[in-house]
Amino acid sequence: MQIAIVLFDRLTALDAVGPYEVLGNLPGATVTFVATEPGPKRTDTGFLALTADASLEDVPAPDVVLVPGGPGQVQAEQDEALLAWLRQVDETSTWTTSVCTGSLVLGAAGLLHGKRATTYWLALEELRRHGATPVAERYVFDGKVATAAGVSSGIDLALALVARMAGDEVAQLIQLGIEYDPQPPFDAGSPATAPAGATQWFRDNSRFILS
Amino acid sequence: MQIAIVLFDRLTALDAVGPYEVLGNLPGATVTFVATEPGPKRTDTGFLALTADASLEDVPAPDVVLVPGGPGQVQAEQDEALLAWLRQVDETSTWTTSVCTGSLVLGAAGLLHGKRATTYWLALEELRRHGATPVAERYVFDGKVATAAGVSSGIDLALALVARMAGDEVAQLIQLGIEYDPQPPFDAGSPATAPAGATQWFRDNSRFILS
Repeated sequence: MQIAIVLFDRLTALDAVGPYEVLGNLPGATVTFVATEPGPKRTDTGFLALTADASLEDVPAPDVVLVPGGPGQVQAEQDEALLAWLRQVDETSTWTTSVCTGSLVLGAAGLLHGKRATTYWLALEELRRHGATPVAERYVFDGKVATAAGVSSGIDLALALVARMAGDEVAQLIQLGIEYDPQPPFDAGSPATAPAGATQWFRDNSRFILS
Repeated sequence: MQIAIVLFDRLTALDAVGPYEVLGNLPGATVTFVATEPGPKRTDTGFLALTADASLEDVPAPDVVLVPGGPGQVQAEQDEALLAWLRQVDETSTWTTSVCTGSLVLGAAGLLHGKRATTYWLALEELRRHGATPVAERYVFDGKVATAAGVSSGIDLALALVARMAGDEVAQLIQLGIEYDPQPPFDAGSPATAPAGATQWFRDNSRFILS
């Protein structure tokens, strides 16, 4: 099984690396990091580079494709080579997936039209410009398209995806393998539970430049 | 504030990238990925490379140092240049930290002697060879040394660390920023809750080669 994870400049690292850590441990799976131009891609903070080993043309028919988000999503939405490749691979993929504002890139490729989908909490309404119905859930499956909420949610989506692909037992093995027994010190990870001041701060100072 | 995250070949990516995603969003913080030899470091699966931008000598006195784990920890425990650097930076650091089997590297540097510490669940007893007392908790603070359990636990540790460095409100803002509202599809992320068969599988087939 071949899994392609798309990289681009100014992506949010955990969007890609969370799901990778789950999917990369699926027995028999190969994960390939792909980009329009292969090479190191600098993440949104500028502090880290993740390497795309392959070009889009190198991976013409992955079983699973995953698009992460981050501020670079704005440029990715306008990358015609990427959008054309996403449309092409979606024709034969088993699962077409995204994390965070990566769903807006799937949307720009025309792959979310008429579908239920999610994205980063602050960007939910943006899904409408691509004809999708926003759903404020941790992850959303609509047919073979699966979208996750913000950043860290890709870990949850990937475990759910492994369960569908290989069964619950394999997903549980991988969950134990990455010791994913989350114990966040605060209950502040969604706008439903965060202090009102925190939610408002993001609305006033969003790191995410939306188009 | 300068935060140094150590990279080495065959590290587990999420050990480093989970805490990076939290600490890299701390206002005023600079995160530098360091290695004995700078350049791309291939993670344990072989599917991803993370770039170390700096050598150890480039970062002689970080405020925070974090050591990830993974199978490459065995070689890291024998990397005398790394161990000497860890001893040196610990003299002036505010926080000396690790995720997963990274604590065994701190231990090899002599920094856990007489301390309570944790590590990947399957490696807990290994802490004793470095004079530490194993504690099966998500993360453990003992003075300025903070160690986290396996792989994904570094996200929880980093949020707790931000709370101590910058206050609860900043930690909550970052938690909302990365939408860390975990909803794992199974309760299988620790040996206490995973199916017995899963725990035994790892005991029989550990991915982690311990010395």
